[in-house]
Amino acid sequence: MPTNRRVTLAARPDGLPKESDFALDQVDVPGPKSGEVLVRIHAVSVDPYQRGRMSEARSYAKPLQLGDVITSQSVGEVMESNDGRFSPGDLVVGQLGWQEYAVARGGSLRLVPHGLDPPTLALHAVGATGLTAYFGLFDVGRPRAGDTVVVSGAAGAVGQIAGQLAKLAGCRTVGIAGGPEKVRELAELYRYDVAVDYKNADLGDALRDERVDVYFDNVGGEISRAVHRRLSIGARIVICGQVSQYNQARPEPSFHPGALIVYRARMEGFLIGDYAHRFGEGVMRLASWVASGDLHWREDVTDGLENAPQAFIGMLNGANRGKALVRVT
Amino acid sequence: MPTNRRVTLAARPDGLPKESDFALDQVDVPGPKSGEVLVRIHAVSVDPYQRGRMSEARSYAKPLQLGDVITSQSVGEVMESNDGRFSPGDLVVGQLGWQEYAVARGGSLRLVPHGLDPPTLALHAVGATGLTAYFGLFDVGRPRAGDTVVVSGAAGAVGQIAGQLAKLAGCRTVGIAGGPEKVRELAELYRYDVAVDYKNADLGDALRDERVDVYFDNVGGEISRAVHRRLSIGARIVICGQVSQYNQARPEPSFHPGALIVYRARMEGFLIGDYAHRFGEGVMRLASWVASGDLHWREDVTDGLENAPQAFIGMLNGANRGKALVRVT
Repeated sequence: MPTNRRVTLAARPDGLPKESDFALDQVDVPGPKSGEVLVRIHAVSVDPYQRGRMSEARSYAKPLQLGDVITSQSVGEVMESNDGRFSPGDLVVGQLGWQEYAVARGGSLRLVPHGLDPPTLALHAVGATGLTAYFGLFDVGRPRAGDTVVVSGAAGAVGQIAGQLAKLAGCRTVGIAGGPEKVRELAELYRYDVAVDYKNADLGDALRDERVDVYFDNVGGEISRAVHRRLSIGARIVICGQVSQYNQARPEPSFHPGALIVYRARMEGFLIGDYAHRFGEGVMRLASWVASGDLHWREDVTDGLENAPQAFIGMLNGANRGKALVRVT
Repeated sequence: MPTNRRVTLAARPDGLPKESDFALDQVDVPGPKSGEVLVRIHAVSVDPYQRGRMSEARSYAKPLQLGDVITSQSVGEVMESNDGRFSPGDLVVGQLGWQEYAVARGGSLRLVPHGLDPPTLALHAVGATGLTAYFGLFDVGRPRAGDTVVVSGAAGAVGQIAGQLAKLAGCRTVGIAGGPEKVRELAELYRYDVAVDYKNADLGDALRDERVDVYFDNVGGEISRAVHRRLSIGARIVICGQVSQYNQARPEPSFHPGALIVYRARMEGFLIGDYAHRFGEGVMRLASWVASGDLHWREDVTDGLENAPQAFIGMLNGANRGKALVRVT
């Protein structure tokens, strides 16, 4: 019987996670019961939201318990199936965690779109992060052609897609990221009209002449405060993430709601899971833009499941270039 | 020639305004030019937003300059008219300020609805504060029957209408106000289902079992923080006012936008002026609810224009019972 290597939560991180907050263990690979599918995992995703699951604080999802496998989107191959919709050899994606094998109910899995190359796109541009950008930008932010759309964390997995989608919708795009290398990528790879390096420029000065119609916010904190000062009348602020706050025990209040009166503005949060009934629409559009070359992407791949914690810590520190993934096999 | 007594801004208030921040002067009553109307003012309104106009900070409206007449909605009688839509004797309402006479362009005035009794209702329940509650609640908050609607500043001019409108829409209403007298009024006069005295109860405890679908926020600050902890999924936060912040030189950031992700919630500001094209609709509905006895109201009238500053300071301190007005004549 093969064994299943897994990365589990060994301790609740205090601030930025350390490698010792994770453990690697081995268990038997379970057999799939009726309606279940056994998947051999090829690659797992590394995302900021995972930090939230490691805390005990009340949030939209149950926190991980100590000893639990780290939650993640993972892509893999069906080995055994007790669900008529899946057959051995199918490539599937689902919330399968940081491990080598997973058993899941068929209803929780999606087939990787046929011909998607590489299949790991189902973990980002044509998967959760692409869908997050797609529904967050279009359904919550509702950009109009001609709008100025500002994206924070613009070189991140969601931000790089959000900017490109805004560009496809006829908007002027302003991306904010940290460091010259990321900012070059914003302009060259992700086609931002304006790319601002918040680490090496005064953000207030850089945004002085902007009127922000849509702010797609991945980071919160100081960066967002600078953007909030440049809102236009009727602005929409999409709260996608607040990564600057994830390592803080108590998130700092950073926003004065009175600003929403002055600008008659709307600030709205969303969770991608609430759009599950429309994932088919999003995947189809995103796959088609990737195939036509209109949607650029970049992967930052770490080899070896045992290196997932290190990749995760690096991603929280902004070390990744493109979507952070771990190749398992 | 009659003279016009006016209350003007003598100094920019530092924190809570003092009577010495205002001056009473006398000027000649000007004659109306082509398209203009001369109005003899009967009553002027006293509202929290006026505090904002006294500061130099950037906002949605130009700040008052020293020596300017204090901005207000006022109701009065047409004395002379060079606009065919108005005749001497007509009762009109408009942004005419704290003074005895005003000349205004006809297009900036509205007729007080025929038979409205008392006509000062055009300054509140069937005027600016009623319209603020009507469009803020229905267009921004979008309550559904069965929703729980929480109103802060619930005994204030806007809050007392907002709660009653929510009740008319089939919602459960929770009003927050300061002091036993106001809270009694919430339950008895304004029909709130639950009335909370934040000065004499722990707001966190009082709201413990609530799930807030719509929060109509007039105050901001600490009170709002307690309400934000009880949002339901899909909650809507209407930012109508932030009166707790108006006397502060720098409003304190009081909100962590990440909460909007957890609850997939929306926070939105609005200005009543943006709904001017729909004032007819709002006035008709509000007047009809007042006439049928479905919309209760209460006026807190101060006599004498010279006492307007004192009424204003009292209102900012929460001393008024019902809509604060000053009777001029």
